[in-house]
Amino acid sequence: MTDRHDRILTSSGFSVSPESPIHADNPVPTPRASPPDIVRCASMELVVTDLAASRRFYVDVLDLVVTEEDEQTVHLRSMEEFIHHNLVLRQGPVAAVAAFSYRVRTPEDLDKAVAFYTELGCRTERRAEGWTKGVGDSVRVIDPLGFPYEFFHDVEHVERLAWRYDLHTPGALVRLDHFNQVTPDVPRAVNFMQSLGFRVTEDIQDDDGVVYAAWMRRKPTVHDTAMTGGDGPRMHHVAFATHEKHNILAICDKLGALRRSDCIERGPGRHGVSNAFYLYLRDPDGHRVEIYTQDYYTGDPDNPVVTWDVHDNQRRDWWGNPVVPSWYTEASLVLDLDGNPQPVVARTDESEMAVTIGADGFSYTRPEAGSEPPPEHEQGEYKLGHQL
Amino acid sequence: MTDRHDRILTSSGFSVSPESPIHADNPVPTPRASPPDIVRCASMELVVTDLAASRRFYVDVLDLVVTEEDEQTVHLRSMEEFIHHNLVLRQGPVAAVAAFSYRVRTPEDLDKAVAFYTELGCRTERRAEGWTKGVGDSVRVIDPLGFPYEFFHDVEHVERLAWRYDLHTPGALVRLDHFNQVTPDVPRAVNFMQSLGFRVTEDIQDDDGVVYAAWMRRKPTVHDTAMTGGDGPRMHHVAFATHEKHNILAICDKLGALRRSDCIERGPGRHGVSNAFYLYLRDPDGHRVEIYTQDYYTGDPDNPVVTWDVHDNQRRDWWGNPVVPSWYTEASLVLDLDGNPQPVVARTDESEMAVTIGADGFSYTRPEAGSEPPPEHEQGEYKLGHQL
Amino acid sequence: MTDRHDRILTSSGFSVSPESPIHADNPVPTPRASPPDIVRCASMELVVTDLAASRRFYVDVLDLVVTEEDEQTVHLRSMEEFIHHNLVLRQGPVAAVAAFSYRVRTPEDLDKAVAFYTELGCRTERRAEGWTKGVGDSVRVIDPLGFPYEFFHDVEHVERLAWRYDLHTPGALVRLDHFNQVTPDVPRAVNFMQSLGFRVTEDIQDDDGVVYAAWMRRKPTVHDTAMTGGDGPRMHHVAFATHEKHNILAICDKLGALRRSDCIERGPGRHGVSNAFYLYLRDPDGHRVEIYTQDYYTGDPDNPVVTWDVHDNQRRDWWGNPVVPSWYTEASLVLDLDGNPQPVVARTDESEMAVTIGADGFSYTRPEAGSEPPPEHEQGEYKLGHQL
Amino acid sequence: MTDRHDRILTSSGFSVSPESPIHADNPVPTPRASPPDIVRCASMELVVTDLAASRRFYVDVLDLVVTEEDEQTVHLRSMEEFIHHNLVLRQGPVAAVAAFSYRVRTPEDLDKAVAFYTELGCRTERRAEGWTKGVGDSVRVIDPLGFPYEFFHDVEHVERLAWRYDLHTPGALVRLDHFNQVTPDVPRAVNFMQSLGFRVTEDIQDDDGVVYAAWMRRKPTVHDTAMTGGDGPRMHHVAFATHEKHNILAICDKLGALRRSDCIERGPGRHGVSNAFYLYLRDPDGHRVEIYTQDYYTGDPDNPVVTWDVHDNQRRDWWGNPVVPSWYTEASLVLDLDGNPQPVVARTDESEMAVTIGADGFSYTRPEAGSEPPPEHEQGEYKLGHQL
Repeated sequence: MTDRHDRILTSSGFSVSPESPIHADNPVPTPRASPPDIVRCASMELVVTDLAASRRFYVDVLDLVVTEEDEQTVHLRSMEEFIHHNLVLRQGPVAAVAAFSYRVRTPEDLDKAVAFYTELGCRTERRAEGWTKGVGDSVRVIDPLGFPYEFFHDVEHVERLAWRYDLHTPGALVRLDHFNQVTPDVPRAVNFMQSLGFRVTEDIQDDDGVVYAAWMRRKPTVHDTAMTGGDGPRMHHVAFATHEKHNILAICDKLGALRRSDCIERGPGRHGVSNAFYLYLRDPDGHRVEIYTQDYYTGDPDNPVVTWDVHDNQRRDWWGNPVVPSWYTEASLVLDLDGNPQPVVARTDESEMAVTIGADGFSYTRPEAGSEPPPEHEQGEYKLGHQL
Repeated sequence: MTDRHDRILTSSGFSVSPESPIHADNPVPTPRASPPDIVRCASMELVVTDLAASRRFYVDVLDLVVTEEDEQTVHLRSMEEFIHHNLVLRQGPVAAVAAFSYRVRTPEDLDKAVAFYTELGCRTERRAEGWTKGVGDSVRVIDPLGFPYEFFHDVEHVERLAWRYDLHTPGALVRLDHFNQVTPDVPRAVNFMQSLGFRVTEDIQDDDGVVYAAWMRRKPTVHDTAMTGGDGPRMHHVAFATHEKHNILAICDKLGALRRSDCIERGPGRHGVSNAFYLYLRDPDGHRVEIYTQDYYTGDPDNPVVTWDVHDNQRRDWWGNPVVPSWYTEASLVLDLDGNPQPVVARTDESEMAVTIGADGFSYTRPEAGSEPPPEHEQGEYKLGHQL
Repeated sequence: MTDRHDRILTSSGFSVSPESPIHADNPVPTPRASPPDIVRCASMELVVTDLAASRRFYVDVLDLVVTEEDEQTVHLRSMEEFIHHNLVLRQGPVAAVAAFSYRVRTPEDLDKAVAFYTELGCRTERRAEGWTKGVGDSVRVIDPLGFPYEFFHDVEHVERLAWRYDLHTPGALVRLDHFNQVTPDVPRAVNFMQSLGFRVTEDIQDDDGVVYAAWMRRKPTVHDTAMTGGDGPRMHHVAFATHEKHNILAICDKLGALRRSDCIERGPGRHGVSNAFYLYLRDPDGHRVEIYTQDYYTGDPDNPVVTWDVHDNQRRDWWGNPVVPSWYTEASLVLDLDGNPQPVVARTDESEMAVTIGADGFSYTRPEAGSEPPPEHEQGEYKLGHQL
Repeated sequence: MTDRHDRILTSSGFSVSPESPIHADNPVPTPRASPPDIVRCASMELVVTDLAASRRFYVDVLDLVVTEEDEQTVHLRSMEEFIHHNLVLRQGPVAAVAAFSYRVRTPEDLDKAVAFYTELGCRTERRAEGWTKGVGDSVRVIDPLGFPYEFFHDVEHVERLAWRYDLHTPGALVRLDHFNQVTPDVPRAVNFMQSLGFRVTEDIQDDDGVVYAAWMRRKPTVHDTAMTGGDGPRMHHVAFATHEKHNILAICDKLGALRRSDCIERGPGRHGVSNAFYLYLRDPDGHRVEIYTQDYYTGDPDNPVVTWDVHDNQRRDWWGNPVVPSWYTEASLVLDLDGNPQPVVARTDESEMAVTIGADGFSYTRPEAGSEPPPEHEQGEYKLGHQL
């Protein structure tokens, strides 16, 4: 771990560290068992309360490809995917996330997953026939943070439609990019994910060392998942990638044409964290979906870890556009292995929204104004807010 | 004029009329003299209080090309312009607009301009040597709405840099596209502009026939100028065009990199009105600059006039993103021919901001919800606002 | 007309003149009658030999919108059009062009058209009910150059689908942009078009004053039609506009996915002339269709006329990529008013292909090499050719 | 290895195999020593004969960032790089490649590299102080195929300029993407690279099993390097990535503006292999540089291997545009560790150019025409060629 005093301030306003700058005061014990070798985030299983409405959103609006469906489920994939699905919609009584699913390198990594989580005292359940269509032998666990994680290697291959431009639409989604999880204690969560083999790429902190969010990766992008500080365990969003920025704008344009613009929650914009271009949507159940493009390569072993000041109002939107409060406060429930919602534990650390928006919080556009609330006309975070 | 009952509702949510749907109760008398044949909006003269700061904004940030400059003025043009300038920055004591300048077809159109405005009792002043460098014989007037208008034909040609891609930057501005003026009585202003030869392309109304804004053109785009209802005469913005949407995003990215994101006031987004992609910036004096691309051809004599419902929350932003209050309320002073600020007269008609934002106003995303305030979760206009 | 010695060489390699630099030795007499006031090129009627195949090309591949169709005809429009059609496909025995159709400003302009062409001794035929569906009173003529021209004002309005992004595809065509005609004597054709009210925007010449092609406009873009030197009268291409360059690339990608890449004849590329981004396709009958975006505004009365040196190998493709010979030599027949193909007259002036490609011709990349064939490694025109 | 009869034909025209479909008849023996753990291709050292001219090309035209330079060398990096350089230009007497340089995961991987190549009888040379500025302990070898490979872990970190949009130009290069090597015996080369830990992602074969080219990766993109069949060892190209396709078009536009379009050798276009958008340039010494964007994720252990038919004329350009012969035949010399050019050995297998272009070769656009030369009008490969 890099001490904060060893961080180097860059000309872009954030700092970089050679290693993760996050320390957990209350860590999950690190198992002696080796973790499974996780290749990438691969799919999410979403419980939806109106399958027809969700299908319209994901298939007719977002143009994901239906690999297979029946009356209770729809299995969807992105245009460049060759495994059976990246998203499963399952009809159910309560909108929630049933699984964050990761692909592991070998079948034997399932044994490792069972051993790893069993040593931690977590409930695990392995099904040789898989938990969803298209996937074989797989393990589901409730991890120490309360999230339902799935691991699988065996999966049905389907045709990669990357070259099928006759099927691409203006907003074509080409890959599942990442998950984002809400958890009360970010350092504890990061520490646990590190024991699972994840590496930190970016985080948001304040001068007191409070960590508001952190991004972690297996594949060499900015993240396979992120931990956002808040009441949890909850699912903040699942993100799909497009090739270019205009694809994301086209999704907005289409939503306008369909008079469904109210499902645009935030954006489009440029993230500070990740440097990616983004858009946040809410599906008919309120599940949040990010559309995302153009972060950067992180695969080197000494990839510099980026730390943003929580008061930097370009950290969440590089253009300083305000973050809507719902984006901070709302998230999806997650389920236990019996399909019951996990209880939500309140965050006790500082709230990013509270410290950056409104009368008590502040943000700055330029670093020289960082030590105190800036003059009102410079309060980029309040571009909209302070006028209402 | 088309009666509102003859408007046709389109599948996009707005209505179209064969002619302008705006009636002025209190029109400026139509002169018997023929108006000058106006070709296009051509340039604006801005008085700025810190010329060096303004030069940094327009030259170093927005990459406009300096045609000519001295200690008091900077003459700037866009990449595809062949006349001397599209923007003049002039050092002065009060930030304001000295002239909205239009090109006319022939030298004789200046005689017509003098006759036209003289008949209306307006002050006119003609200078054979021009009011700015690069421009010859020209006329300035204070029009019946209180705005300083300039007309010229004779102008110095400079090289069109359209092919000089070695000089283009990621956010290259290629044309001056339009002006936007704030005036209390929009129908009166529209009626006057029609007598000057402008044609209405779009407007915003309510069911009572109150007109909140109107767009008018000479060249066959959506506008050369627009009239925005509000306290006036003031200048709402001047707009430059880019080739593509990514050019506009690049300007935002650059402003972030320069830690000047707080000059982004609104957007980027897709307009409902005009269908263009947009961004609003504020220069160091608060003058508003729009960056704009991809409206549509309007040159046919029977081009359908588009009328938007003021309560349609996609009229100003097709994605339903909120309009920041400052965008409605703030604007630049305009000068008389002696360089003194024109007095500002308050609008007495309904305020668009008041009827669409906040506790008293409402907006809708879908037409079926148009007759009354929609449920809160559908209030796209309030995406941010109602949460604060 | 500007004398060639008064042309000004620009830093981009071409010259500019204040007026058209083209002189006709053998002009069509200018009628005393006033020409009709042409608004813009509006549609083309194409005779196709396999209507189903053509429909697949224009509707299923290029995604033009069917306004109306029957067993013999398909009426198509682009996404931003509000008149009935921009293209009519009509089943017939010989692939050819039945009409280049222009919109005029008023109904009375049809009377002017009849008088104008009658004075020239041209056959004219007026039909109050129109020649195609959706269009009322209209006049067709065989002009002095042998082309079938149509003029109309009265036309059925249909919904402009500009905002219907749910219907836009990645390669959405938004406007009919221009025609291009092949004619043996370009100066004679230009002179005639000037008498019809067209203005020259660009041309290609050599040092001896031979004119190889010229571009002319009514609406303020680079052209409504162009005259390409060659055996004629024939139709070189009809061009549709997209919003952005990626839309054109998407059409190429789709053609690849459909295994129809062999209908790509030339491009995509950047034109020197017009500065537009382009692609040339061939439809199932060999009719050439250009997809085009981002030329520049030409509406000022003194818009500088651009003259390219025929030996400048960036004139046709700014990147110096070779022009395929078929692009020079192949074109569509045009019909007389009885539906019979017009005879084709050979060009006797120099051929652009002959003077620029292969052993006898030459081209240069840099001006300093302009006076003689450049060393082989600099022969951009021969990037491919000289290696075969 | 997958037998060709187990390949599955896709709807896009190519086949996929679960494993590499390439068999080497004459393999390099596989060392018992473990190979170094290669992270990614990281930089290339180019010997150039006119350093000032090369600097203009890479810095002034392509806008790579100078990390450090002196009279003999220029060290350059891309906008998103955090290691010292991706390209070293070194003044020398003969244009050639001095090193293909790869980053390894740990310092200990250098020991492995030495052992691995030593076992193969290759010359290796380790320098604790590095071979270039910015890089520490590193090993250079002449591999069994004759190429100068470098491995390093220790490297100076510099600021990643990903967020410095004020420094980005329209054609900004953001990453080094891959190398491409010319070698006579592709299966032998592939087999050796597999022993070094590379995985095959795509290849081009004919029905007789002749392999014309193969793509291999360490990082999860389509390749870190490719083997192109031809006289070798030579360097075919080095490739840099942009974010979007318009960035590549902007490079073409800029080259046109600089009247340097003759350095565009091939493209822009869409590859069949890799599905990426591409452009090939030649630097002042003739070294080939590719600009590349938007291939696909290949990181799963069972990523389907794509095999293209050598006669498929969309394999090299998805739009069927012709491949210029120089692209097949010309390449850069590579140096031994003393700085002398390696001798070039002729390919004895079939030549891709010979079997696909011209009188003896053929290509097809649609699979049904694959078994024999198609009718001339379908010969997409000959779009240009057959007309000259």
